[in-house]
Amino acid sequence: MKKLIFSLALCQLLMTNAWAQARKYTTFYEQRATLFDVLPVGPEDIIFLGNSITNGGEWAELFNNPHVKNRGISGDICEGVYDRLDAITSGKPAKIFLLIGINNVSRGLSADSIAANVRRVVRKIKADTPRTRVYVQSVLPVNDTLGMFHDHTSRWQMIPQINALLRPMAREEGVEYIDLYTHFVDAATGKMNTAYTNDGLHLLGKGYLLWRDVVLPYVND
Amino acid sequence: MKKLIFSLALCQLLMTNAWAQARKYTTFYEQRATLFDVLPVGPEDIIFLGNSITNGGEWAELFNNPHVKNRGISGDICEGVYDRLDAITSGKPAKIFLLIGINNVSRGLSADSIAANVRRVVRKIKADTPRTRVYVQSVLPVNDTLGMFHDHTSRWQMIPQINALLRPMAREEGVEYIDLYTHFVDAATGKMNTAYTNDGLHLLGKGYLLWRDVVLPYVND
Repeated sequence: MKKLIFSLALCQLLMTNAWAQARKYTTFYEQRATLFDVLPVGPEDIIFLGNSITNGGEWAELFNNPHVKNRGISGDICEGVYDRLDAITSGKPAKIFLLIGINNVSRGLSADSIAANVRRVVRKIKADTPRTRVYVQSVLPVNDTLGMFHDHTSRWQMIPQINALLRPMAREEGVEYIDLYTHFVDAATGKMNTAYTNDGLHLLGKGYLLWRDVVLPYVND
Repeated sequence: MKKLIFSLALCQLLMTNAWAQARKYTTFYEQRATLFDVLPVGPEDIIFLGNSITNGGEWAELFNNPHVKNRGISGDICEGVYDRLDAITSGKPAKIFLLIGINNVSRGLSADSIAANVRRVVRKIKADTPRTRVYVQSVLPVNDTLGMFHDHTSRWQMIPQINALLRPMAREEGVEYIDLYTHFVDAATGKMNTAYTNDGLHLLGKGYLLWRDVVLPYVND
């Protein structure tokens, strides 16, 4: 009888996990994550890790360096990044550039929660691959005046609040903080400069060049 | 007066074009296309050109070759590829692997029209960069049993009709045809093998490895 109850409990646990997984992640997440599972990462690699904003870059081309690799998944959140870290950290890459959080903003999380979730990602990276250099990039500004991605862009005032938490968090964790925000924001409005975006959230080619220029010293360091 | 009419006509033409452009392309198309505009292409490069299925691949990593470059745009159609060819052909790349058409299927175009549109892309490539080797890849099978992308997957029976036109078109144009379809289809059903997809349209990591294996001889040739 005990055995039966144990089996039933185990069965339910497995089903709950499968169900949670199924609900938690999009089909696109699974497509990218299963690709990342079969692509090797090595000690010379430099990983760009994040959501659609990272996904959209052609990083090896931007840096003219085949070791710079794209590990972005459109729509990803802090938890999604956390859950797929093993495919990256197992290769003990040289550097990881992390940019995540805006899809947690759109889901209504507080700045505190988001910074805590980013810290959780940083801590797992540090625990799994202590010699990897971690760069926490500030969340980019957004712009609601283009009328798209309302759940993200209407919360534009949260971005500096999040970044104000990410900077000391990075210091406390002993990792680098990179301020992208200041470069992309229109200082007069506090919203993303429309030279770099056509939807208030994602980047045009010019935006990727700016990002490249800002992080180049850290990539080459 | 004639001058005024001419100016007005020119003005209207320009406005119509701008409006057509604005309607024709998504913001994502513009994000990717403007990135491609600033990324160089050179004579050693091997270009993967197409829609989301190409966009999802990490091609340089799959082939362990930094000259293999991603020029996919999710949602793209034959006309979208045609309109952004200059950023690719101006660099006179060594090879272009083209996979396009399924988003024309979902918009209700006939197999004949789609094959004609792919031919138009091939002819522009040949005209602009005659020494570039062009590979027309068959359209991949789709699968409607996963209940997603209905406009694409419900028309699964059209795919072999399109491919039956692409093969002789490629021969007539003097370019290579690569049959991916046979490798991805479940021969019993005529739909994409669910080992390679989780939504009936896009590829899992295992699908990208199969694709890589099929085209590897052509990439290395």
